[in-house]
Amino acid sequence: MMNRVKAAVAQLVGGAVSNSSPGNGPESSFKFQYSRPAFLHLSWEENERAADHSSRPILTPSEGDSRTKLLPWDTGYAEMLEAGKSAFNEDQAAREIVCVERRSPKNRTVADAVKEDERVANEKQGLEFHYWALFDGHAGTGAAVIAAKLLHLHICDQLRDIVDILRDGDIPPPISLTSNAGAVTGDVAKTPTHQGDWEPPTDSESRFLLEKEISHEYLIIGAIENAFRQMDEQIEREQRSHGILGGCCALAVVYLLGKIYVANAGDSRAILIRNGETIPLSNEFTPESERQRLQYLGYLQPHLLGNEFTHLEFPRRIQHREIGRMMLYRDYSMTGWAYKTIEEDDLKFPLVYGEGKKARVMATIGVTRGLGDHNLKVHCSNIHIKPFLSCIPEVKVYDVTKYEHGVDDVIVLGTDGLWDVISDREVADAVIHILSNCEPDNPNRFTLAAQDLVMRSRGILKEHGWRLSNDRLGSGDDISVFVIPLYGHT
Amino acid sequence: MMNRVKAAVAQLVGGAVSNSSPGNGPESSFKFQYSRPAFLHLSWEENERAADHSSRPILTPSEGDSRTKLLPWDTGYAEMLEAGKSAFNEDQAAREIVCVERRSPKNRTVADAVKEDERVANEKQGLEFHYWALFDGHAGTGAAVIAAKLLHLHICDQLRDIVDILRDGDIPPPISLTSNAGAVTGDVAKTPTHQGDWEPPTDSESRFLLEKEISHEYLIIGAIENAFRQMDEQIEREQRSHGILGGCCALAVVYLLGKIYVANAGDSRAILIRNGETIPLSNEFTPESERQRLQYLGYLQPHLLGNEFTHLEFPRRIQHREIGRMMLYRDYSMTGWAYKTIEEDDLKFPLVYGEGKKARVMATIGVTRGLGDHNLKVHCSNIHIKPFLSCIPEVKVYDVTKYEHGVDDVIVLGTDGLWDVISDREVADAVIHILSNCEPDNPNRFTLAAQDLVMRSRGILKEHGWRLSNDRLGSGDDISVFVIPLYGHT
Repeated sequence: MMNRVKAAVAQLVGGAVSNSSPGNGPESSFKFQYSRPAFLHLSWEENERAADHSSRPILTPSEGDSRTKLLPWDTGYAEMLEAGKSAFNEDQAAREIVCVERRSPKNRTVADAVKEDERVANEKQGLEFHYWALFDGHAGTGAAVIAAKLLHLHICDQLRDIVDILRDGDIPPPISLTSNAGAVTGDVAKTPTHQGDWEPPTDSESRFLLEKEISHEYLIIGAIENAFRQMDEQIEREQRSHGILGGCCALAVVYLLGKIYVANAGDSRAILIRNGETIPLSNEFTPESERQRLQYLGYLQPHLLGNEFTHLEFPRRIQHREIGRMMLYRDYSMTGWAYKTIEEDDLKFPLVYGEGKKARVMATIGVTRGLGDHNLKVHCSNIHIKPFLSCIPEVKVYDVTKYEHGVDDVIVLGTDGLWDVISDREVADAVIHILSNCEPDNPNRFTLAAQDLVMRSRGILKEHGWRLSNDRLGSGDDISVFVIPLYGHT
Repeated sequence: MMNRVKAAVAQLVGGAVSNSSPGNGPESSFKFQYSRPAFLHLSWEENERAADHSSRPILTPSEGDSRTKLLPWDTGYAEMLEAGKSAFNEDQAAREIVCVERRSPKNRTVADAVKEDERVANEKQGLEFHYWALFDGHAGTGAAVIAAKLLHLHICDQLRDIVDILRDGDIPPPISLTSNAGAVTGDVAKTPTHQGDWEPPTDSESRFLLEKEISHEYLIIGAIENAFRQMDEQIEREQRSHGILGGCCALAVVYLLGKIYVANAGDSRAILIRNGETIPLSNEFTPESERQRLQYLGYLQPHLLGNEFTHLEFPRRIQHREIGRMMLYRDYSMTGWAYKTIEEDDLKFPLVYGEGKKARVMATIGVTRGLGDHNLKVHCSNIHIKPFLSCIPEVKVYDVTKYEHGVDDVIVLGTDGLWDVISDREVADAVIHILSNCEPDNPNRFTLAAQDLVMRSRGILKEHGWRLSNDRLGSGDDISVFVIPLYGHT
C-alpha cells in the first residue's frame, strides 16, 4: 500500500520544484508520520521537549544552534502545544516556494518537441509561487500532517495546465483549449495551447453567441479551489487504505504574480496589518456562520440526518412534555426567529446546536469546512458528518501591487488558539509594538512578533491554569502563528 | 371561488386596522383587478392617459386637483410606464399604516375575559407600523397586484402573536409560550401569554441546559420572512383557483418601534442618503448573485433540471463538435474557473446563463427571488422554474434612533427601471439638489425628488428612443420610486 502513496506523491511532485526540506523531495521515502514542521529542524530530543504540557515551550525557526535558518521573506513563525488534552500538537504548518512547470504533452511528435525546445529556450520555464499554510487538526493528527506535506503540490498540479496562460498576463484566458482528450484531474496528460483557437459557434441563435470574459485571477482561484478538493479526495483514499485519522481546518496563502490569495476552510484566520489598521483577509466557517447551508442540505436530503436529527434550530433542547406548545425556531430560510407548535419530530436533536465556540454540527464538530473527516461519525451511530462538512475554501484576493507597504506591514495567520483569546486590535498592537522596537533590518523581528503573539495568548501558568496578563483565561488550545512581511515584495 | 378569496382576506385583515384607501377594507368587495395604486386617486380617464406609451407621463400623488392628498410622513412617490412592451405598468406600490392587534384567544373562559379586559384597560391595545413597498411584476400583473394589496396584512398577521412580547421591550422573548395547540400559520387561534413560563428541563445533561437569547429584532425579522412565505403561498392558491398570472420582485420597508426593516426579494433596491453619503440597504438577487445557490439545488436534485439543463456554468454555449476539448467551467462550489474535458452531458443548456441584465435562470427569468411564478415553466416544456426561485427576503435592519437625521436625509426605494440607468451617487446628487432647492417645510419636496428621479432615468424621447441628458439610453422599463424622509421620525 505504501507504494500507492509513493506513486501518488511522485506523480504529484512531477511538475514542482520545491525548495522545502529534503524530506519532501520526490525521491525520498515519504511517510505521513507525525512530526513538527520540517522548517523547525528539531532533533528527536527537541521534539520530545516540545511535547511538555507543563511548560508549553514556544517553538520558532530561529531558536537554537547553527542549523538555524530564516524562512523565506524572513517570515516569522511560532507555535505551541495545547494544555494537556492530547499527546500531540494537532496544528501543522508549511512554508514553501514552489516552481510550477507546464505539463509535458504525452505522445508529442518530433516537430512538437523541436517547437517546444525553441519555446523553452525563449522564455523562463517555471512560474514561482510562495506559499504559507496552517492546518488545525482534530480527532487525530493524520489529515493535518498529510495536508501540510501535500496541499501546495496539489495547488502546483492544478496550476500546471494554465502556466502559459498566466504568463501571458495581457491575453484573456481562452474559453476552450485544444486538447488530447483526458480528464482535468491531471492523471492524463493534456496539451494546453493557449492560442485561443476558438471557432465561432455555427448556431445562429444570439444567446449562443454570448461569451463571458474570465480574468486570470479567477483561474487561480479555481485552481486553488480544485486543489483543496483534490487534497480532500487524497486524504479520503489515505484514510481508507492506511486508517489515517482526523480532519483539519486549512488556511493557505499563495503569493503569485503580484497578488496574495488567502484560501480558508475552517476557523483559522488571516488579517492584514497595514499602516496600523487591521483588515480581515478571511471569514470563519463554523456551525453558526454556516447554519443555513447545513440546514438546507438537511432539508433537501433528510436521510443524511439518520432519523436522529432535525434540520430546524431551537434556542434550547425541547422535552417530550412540551409537545403542543409554541416555541421559538428557525429553518434554513430564516435569519429571524418565530414561534411554532412543537411536534414529535421536533424532539430530535438539532443539526446545529449551541452558541459560539460551543456550537456543534450533529453534537460532534465545531467547524464546518476543512480537509479529511471522512470517517467521522456521530457518537455511537452510523451517521456520517462529512456530507455537511465542505472542503471548499473561500478565496480572497489581495492585490499587493496596489498599495505601498511599510516595514511594519504584515499579514498574520493564526489558528483559533490565537484568535479565541485576543482580538484583531490586540494582535495588531502587539505586532506593531515588537516590530517598532526592533531594528528594521533585523530579519528575526517577524519571528519575535509571532513568538510574542503566542506567548500573549497562552499567558502564564498560575494556580488556576494559564492566565493572560489581565487575568482572563489563556488559550488552552494549540497555537500556531505566521507573521508575513509585505515590504519589499511588491 | 370569489367567496374563498373574500374569506381569506377577511381572515387576514381581522387583526389589522388599515388607514389605507377604502378599497382595501375588510367589508369591501375585494378584487384582484389591475389598477394603479389607490393612493394616486386616479380617475378612469387618468388611468387611460397613464398608459400612453408615447408620452410616458409621470404619475405622483400630489398632482392634479383637490383630491390630492399627501402620503403619510410626506413620503414622495412617482411612477411611470415602460416604453411599449406591455399594455400595463407591471410595477405596483403600497404605502400603509397598520395597527396590529393581538389575536383574541379562542374558547376563553369568563375569568380569562375579565383578566383580559383589565389588561386592555391598562395598556394601549395596538402596535402601529409604517409600511412602504414596491412590487415589480413580470409575465403578468396578477402577483404584483395581489402582493401590493395584501403583503402588509400578512406581516400584520405574523406580528399578532408577538404584540405583547414586542411591547415589553426590556424583557427578552420567552423561548416557549403556553398555548392551546394550533398551527403557527394563524388559522387556529393561539393564546400567547408572554410571561415566559419556562420550566427548567428535567434532563441533567448540560448540553440540554444551553439556552440562546433571542432579541426582539430577530422576532420581527422572522415575522417578515414568514409573511413573505405566507403571501407566496396565497398567490399560489389564487393562481390555481383564479388563473392569475405572473410573479413579482418585492421590496418592503417596515418602520416599527424605532427601527427600519428593509426586506428585499428580487432586483429592486433601497439606499439610504444620510448627510450626503449613500448607504445601500438591500442586496439584489439575480441569477449571477445567486448562482451558487441555484447550482447547488440543481446538483442535489437533478430531476428539477428535467434532463434539459446542466448545473455547471460555462462562459458560452458548447457545441457537439467540442466534445473532448478542455473548456472553462465552474460548479456550485467554485468562485473561480477551471478547465474540464467536455462530455455529452455538458451540451445541455446551463441552468444559469448570461451576464448582467441578460443573465437568466433556465433561459427564462432574470431574477431569483420574489413572489408568485408558480405556473412559470421553461418555454415549450414541463420544467417548472419555481423550485429555483425563493420567496424569502433578505431583511436588513437600520436603527433610526442611533443617528441624527437632517431634513434632507431620506431612504430611496426604486424598481430596477431606476437603478439600471443611474448610479447610487447620481440618485443621491439629484435628490440632494431638489431637496435643497425647496423650502424645508414644503411637504411636497419628496415627491418632487421622486418625480425628478423618474424623469432622469426615463430621459427624453428622441429619434432613436428615450435618451438621458448624456445621450446614454434611458430606461425603457417601468419605473417606481419612493423617497422616504427620516427627519422628525426618530
